Amino acid sequence: MSGEAAYADWIAVDWGTSRLRVWAMSREGVARARASSEDGMNGLARDAFEPALLHLIEPWLGTGQVSVLACGMVGSRQGWAEVPYQPVPCVPGALKPVAVPTRDARIRLFIMPGMSQMTPADVMRGEETQIAGFLTEEPAFDGVLCLPGTHTKWVHISAGEVVSFQTFMTGELFRLLSEQSVLRHGVSRENMDGARFTSAVSDALSRPERMAQRLFAIRAEGVLQGLTPEAARGQLSGGLIGAELAAARPYWLGQQVVVAGAPALAALYVEALASQGATARMLDAGPLTRTGLARAYLTLAETTS
Amino acid sequence: MSGEAAYADWIAVDWGTSRLRVWAMSREGVARARASSEDGMNGLARDAFEPALLHLIEPWLGTGQVSVLACGMVGSRQGWAEVPYQPVPCVPGALKPVAVPTRDARIRLFIMPGMSQMTPADVMRGEETQIAGFLTEEPAFDGVLCLPGTHTKWVHISAGEVVSFQTFMTGELFRLLSEQSVLRHGVSRENMDGARFTSAVSDALSRPERMAQRLFAIRAEGVLQGLTPEAARGQLSGGLIGAELAAARPYWLGQQVVVAGAPALAALYVEALASQGATARMLDAGPLTRTGLARAYLTLAETTS
Repeated sequence: MSGEAAYADWIAVDWGTSRLRVWAMSREGVARARASSEDGMNGLARDAFEPALLHLIEPWLGTGQVSVLACGMVGSRQGWAEVPYQPVPCVPGALKPVAVPTRDARIRLFIMPGMSQMTPADVMRGEETQIAGFLTEEPAFDGVLCLPGTHTKWVHISAGEVVSFQTFMTGELFRLLSEQSVLRHGVSRENMDGARFTSAVSDALSRPERMAQRLFAIRAEGVLQGLTPEAARGQLSGGLIGAELAAARPYWLGQQVVVAGAPALAALYVEALASQGATARMLDAGPLTRTGLARAYLTLAETTS
Repeated sequence: MSGEAAYADWIAVDWGTSRLRVWAMSREGVARARASSEDGMNGLARDAFEPALLHLIEPWLGTGQVSVLACGMVGSRQGWAEVPYQPVPCVPGALKPVAVPTRDARIRLFIMPGMSQMTPADVMRGEETQIAGFLTEEPAFDGVLCLPGTHTKWVHISAGEVVSFQTFMTGELFRLLSEQSVLRHGVSRENMDGARFTSAVSDALSRPERMAQRLFAIRAEGVLQGLTPEAARGQLSGGLIGAELAAARPYWLGQQVVVAGAPALAALYVEALASQGATARMLDAGPLTRTGLARAYLTLAETTS
């Protein structure tokens, strides 16, 4: 590298559907700076990805070339460049970042492949890197990792491999129902009645076939019985998470479970599992993506040096 | 009545969440003219209801006073005036329209009460008038009436009474998922693979606890296995209707069932029921509201004459 030294030895990028987050990384995997924007994949045409990235990382570039490692929906068909999925079973830490050409010669871009499963059909993009980060911290983990979010993933891990996984649209359903359906009038945007949440989880688990009828009952109880917005939020969230737990039972029953997500959401999953007699450990998912990208950077440095 | 004769003897109004439909009626219950607009309850402040109505019915008014009978969300808390629910069990044809004051002296407005049920909590507004219309045509009906729509109702009718009912948000869920979720990229707006619909119904009925996981599989099969948009629509619609049938089983198993709705949607329900060995009769719901309002008009004429 010649000329002015770059502030970042390499750059880590978490590029999802609705957000873009970047970190200026040291060779040792320490984040020196961070930045983010609302330039998620959803709002960008193919040509707009590179400018959106440069807009954030420009201050970290020198005159030499810096590696940029990205994961998430940026690698999907609607992203910057489509990067193939790696089928399970699969070792997350061994996933090979794929080089993608850029116009700006100061960056050398790599995108992480996602993971796929044929039966039942399932895909992930971004979570494979979180899993790699998790296994970097806990290489001997054997059990189930739950990653709650818009599309919650339950991941069965054994001997360092992802054996199988299962996605649930629980987070997206909650958002659509609480913000855009007839229920929006009666569901609190912020506070939740915890007891109502727990009873809704239990009810959904004991009679999962009634899921479809529980939703409108939230509206009716609001109108007829003065159900509070906080109780309505507990009922909706508990009903949806309970239905998810009913379907994901093979993933958590009698398994060692770690729930890694945004703390408030992860806590709900841990609580729901506890109400069913299952103990789960909670982990802040915040650093996992960065750790996973740092692991991939090492692989890259080894193979290209 | 003095002065210029009105074109309508009375006016029937079906005022829902998103649409306003009116008919100029003869004393004998024949529609002489019709009109409609997008002035549904959702878009109107309380003061805007009367102008929205007059905008449509003005040409039908004379110098005298004309009765206007309305049903639907116009009678809800967010409507023109809140009209109380009538609890079940309840005879739909005996529901008493409630007089609501208007500024314009040429109209005398009445709004139909909705129906409510305490356990399990449930409410309807508008469907009670459809049911009254149905029972006007088939007074001896004993069985279950299914009214599919945004919020599908299953109604148990015996000896001319509504004994109980149950609402499912299936229509609203289908719209949100097919138009606003991650599934929107892969679900056809128009055409449906019928075989896929039927298999999705059966699958949902035999394993209703897996509802939450089937949704994302539609996305994954699209990405990995080239699921066509038509098959995706069949899968989504069949999965949701199947989940509804699983929860509504006590309403249709071994019962005499009539499905009254928009023909294309009603046909899906009849087909789904047939795939489970249940025979249902199909009925176009189009005229039911008008017939129900005409029946209420007779009651009104009797009590006010």
